Amino acid sequence: MLESSLPPSTTPPEISRPFVTLTFATSLDSSLSLAPGVRTRLSGPDSKAMTHYLRSRHDAILIGVSTLLADAPALNCRITGAASQPRPIVIDPHLRWTPSNYDKVLEVSRLGNGLAPFVLTGVESQNLPAESVALLERHGGKYIHVPATSIINERMRFDWHDVFKALCHEGLASVMVEGGGQIINSLLNPRYHALVDSVIVTIAPTWLGQGGVVVSPDRLQDSAGVPIPAARLSNVLWHPFGEDVVLCGKLHN
Amino acid sequence: MLESSLPPSTTPPEISRPFVTLTFATSLDSSLSLAPGVRTRLSGPDSKAMTHYLRSRHDAILIGVSTLLADAPALNCRITGAASQPRPIVIDPHLRWTPSNYDKVLEVSRLGNGLAPFVLTGVESQNLPAESVALLERHGGKYIHVPATSIINERMRFDWHDVFKALCHEGLASVMVEGGGQIINSLLNPRYHALVDSVIVTIAPTWLGQGGVVVSPDRLQDSAGVPIPAARLSNVLWHPFGEDVVLCGKLHN
Repeated sequence: MLESSLPPSTTPPEISRPFVTLTFATSLDSSLSLAPGVRTRLSGPDSKAMTHYLRSRHDAILIGVSTLLADAPALNCRITGAASQPRPIVIDPHLRWTPSNYDKVLEVSRLGNGLAPFVLTGVESQNLPAESVALLERHGGKYIHVPATSIINERMRFDWHDVFKALCHEGLASVMVEGGGQIINSLLNPRYHALVDSVIVTIAPTWLGQGGVVVSPDRLQDSAGVPIPAARLSNVLWHPFGEDVVLCGKLHN
Repeated sequence: MLESSLPPSTTPPEISRPFVTLTFATSLDSSLSLAPGVRTRLSGPDSKAMTHYLRSRHDAILIGVSTLLADAPALNCRITGAASQPRPIVIDPHLRWTPSNYDKVLEVSRLGNGLAPFVLTGVESQNLPAESVALLERHGGKYIHVPATSIINERMRFDWHDVFKALCHEGLASVMVEGGGQIINSLLNPRYHALVDSVIVTIAPTWLGQGGVVVSPDRLQDSAGVPIPAARLSNVLWHPFGEDVVLCGKLHN
């Protein structure tokens, strides 16, 4: 049921950017979790199985550093006999993450059950902490410098064109963007819709309540200052899936 | 597909409260509209037809006064040859609505295409404006006094038990609660789950963006102060319906 929402199984010889799938699970009130840093079980076991199937179909999985720090995820594909593992990509402009041997994502890579992450950072190569560089490289990961194009609240922000260009440069032809809220909301900005090939949202029949980490893009206005919808999916398919529903669609035609 | 979510077609002889259906349409980011007072077309023509079918199956439809003032709705059932019309119920503790001959809801009642509203208010009968009383009664509507049980931000609030008791007293055996945000969020509070027999949510594949009128109940915490989900539906059914999905479920088992 997901085939039309997935990257082609054979990659065209020349690509200028990866196939981008944006995927996440929310409550009915569009929350990813009960509060920042609180891991929240939303969807059922079927949806978890779907996530691992999706991971098996992408070259890379991308998350923001806040999600890495909050969830300590393994970021691997846990399907028995998976032909290959996706490359974890961590967006960490200011190097908030200091890798250690105890990090789950490095542990699974040592055990051969996943790959070590590529960390996209705004910190220049010569300013990277040598120990972290060595630790990542020992596991097969590395830092990749991406120039920050804007500063919001004193934090560097990347342009998604630069991020996906960097992945393409690494030979990664498809990437599944998994979260968290800031990453998802920024990709839902109309400026980036053309970069997103597929959107897969799982919705659980729960209201988490006020104060959660909410998926809702920045407000959009027309030239007269009247608010207009920020994003609409086309080619929409709804798949009931256990207690949840899986929504597949496209942000651009 | 909706039958199991609807009031029984024959009313039991003795009821202590009406059958309550909570129904509304949101965006993926759980917004009812782009901003307070801004009427927003969210769902497609199929969903509109469904709304009128649902109205034909209930004795009453209930909205808050903010929705009445913002949308100027007709609050009738626009199915040709509908056997009967639902009674509009307006929750208006402070009498923010001053009825006039030009109000859509009174216009349709004059034309025989709907019923005049019953307005539930915290204002005592002797303090009601005589002109409004006369105007409503000429159309077949009236004011019903409900005691306010709490004051929040200097506004009177009703207890839903009292509201539904008042409807029962009027011989209304089923009510469809349609909005707006404040009404819906207050009914999603666990204190009232036992009063809600059926929930029907239409979700459109759109993100309205930050700043909308959001359905999200108040935060709930366990005894240790840890946030927990505010509400979860059981007996869940998802029905893809054009571009939208219709979710049916129950708040209590």
